[in-house]
Amino acid sequence: MVVVPAAISNFFDVATPVQWLEEACTRLPELLLDHANCELKAASTAMGFLYRYPDRVGLAQRMSRLAREELRHFEQVRAIMEDMGVPFERHTASRYAGSLRAAVRHDEPQKLLDMLLIGALIEARSCERFAVLAPRLPEKLGRFYSGLLTSEARHFEHYLALAKSETGIDEAEIEARLAELKVIEAELIAGPDSQFGFHSGKPTSVKPPISVREGPT
Amino acid sequence: MVVVPAAISNFFDVATPVQWLEEACTRLPELLLDHANCELKAASTAMGFLYRYPDRVGLAQRMSRLAREELRHFEQVRAIMEDMGVPFERHTASRYAGSLRAAVRHDEPQKLLDMLLIGALIEARSCERFAVLAPRLPEKLGRFYSGLLTSEARHFEHYLALAKSETGIDEAEIEARLAELKVIEAELIAGPDSQFGFHSGKPTSVKPPISVREGPT
Repeated sequence: MVVVPAAISNFFDVATPVQWLEEACTRLPELLLDHANCELKAASTAMGFLYRYPDRVGLAQRMSRLAREELRHFEQVRAIMEDMGVPFERHTASRYAGSLRAAVRHDEPQKLLDMLLIGALIEARSCERFAVLAPRLPEKLGRFYSGLLTSEARHFEHYLALAKSETGIDEAEIEARLAELKVIEAELIAGPDSQFGFHSGKPTSVKPPISVREGPT
Repeated sequence: MVVVPAAISNFFDVATPVQWLEEACTRLPELLLDHANCELKAASTAMGFLYRYPDRVGLAQRMSRLAREELRHFEQVRAIMEDMGVPFERHTASRYAGSLRAAVRHDEPQKLLDMLLIGALIEARSCERFAVLAPRLPEKLGRFYSGLLTSEARHFEHYLALAKSETGIDEAEIEARLAELKVIEAELIAGPDSQFGFHSGKPTSVKPPISVREGPT
């Protein structure tokens, strides 16, 4: 039985809407394609920290390892797609990641803090989605997604720890900023979304359930 | 005893000049710093193939694995630098990589071919340099460089194999192009170079040996 790790379910105020989950189960090829793109982007984002903050050895070592792990996941999703005959193509940034990044402040160390907190949010949400998806997927894919859970939960912890250790910003200010970013994230996850993707919101394409009064008696 | 693998020594017409080797042994912190930069750039270059040719699964899987290995080497060099108290900073593209990349043609599949062949050349040269450096370095660093040899030789083979399998260009044309790029590479390695780096040419800062006729009798 796959469950959302307590650290992750306690972290979020808003859970993945059941409508997204139902939609995802009927759109597996698109889900996998977007997931593969997410892994590649996660690797590039991690490497971005190496380029942007080259002198920070703790950050560099952690981000390099994280990039390696994301690349490994990319290879795994790519192989599953190949088995299923799903072609790969590149996606531009999703509404989810794009909107979160738009909230990043421009001055340091606030910029670094925001990027690390957004990294934590994305990893946590991915973990939550893997957990709710896994029991509903074909067995092999479900097993793979259950396995990814642990990595994503670990990445979430690393991003949060780095936000504390690398920015020099005090914990109360970090918590306050995290609360602000969580509000943005929750709106992206629970609000209506016309595009479907790994981190999309409540699908607008879903038909409303047939009202009991209108149904056959 | 570390030796240049036969596949590599047979591949090159021009060996690393002894003057570079002597210079390198007196400039270890700069060598390590440039080496760490090279590993990071090699990872980014490998990932560039994933972004540029997203639909090619064989290329994608190979390049993703390669990027992971380069990142792991980056972490190792970074840790050695940290032990030695050498700070890390980013280098822009070296004369070597920059000049080779300037030779890349613009149309496909020639562009892909050139990038893969240049990848092979860079990996092969790195392998050769690790082999000649290793016996002259402090023990721990020498052991590390001997270990990297095998990876670089393998990457060289992978790049060459991909040039053949991914471009659809016939072997005679590939060999002819490789010969052209080798001429450029040899000039960069054997020609005078005012900058020192992992892939720099013959150092211009080295004083010429004192002529016998001018010396004391």
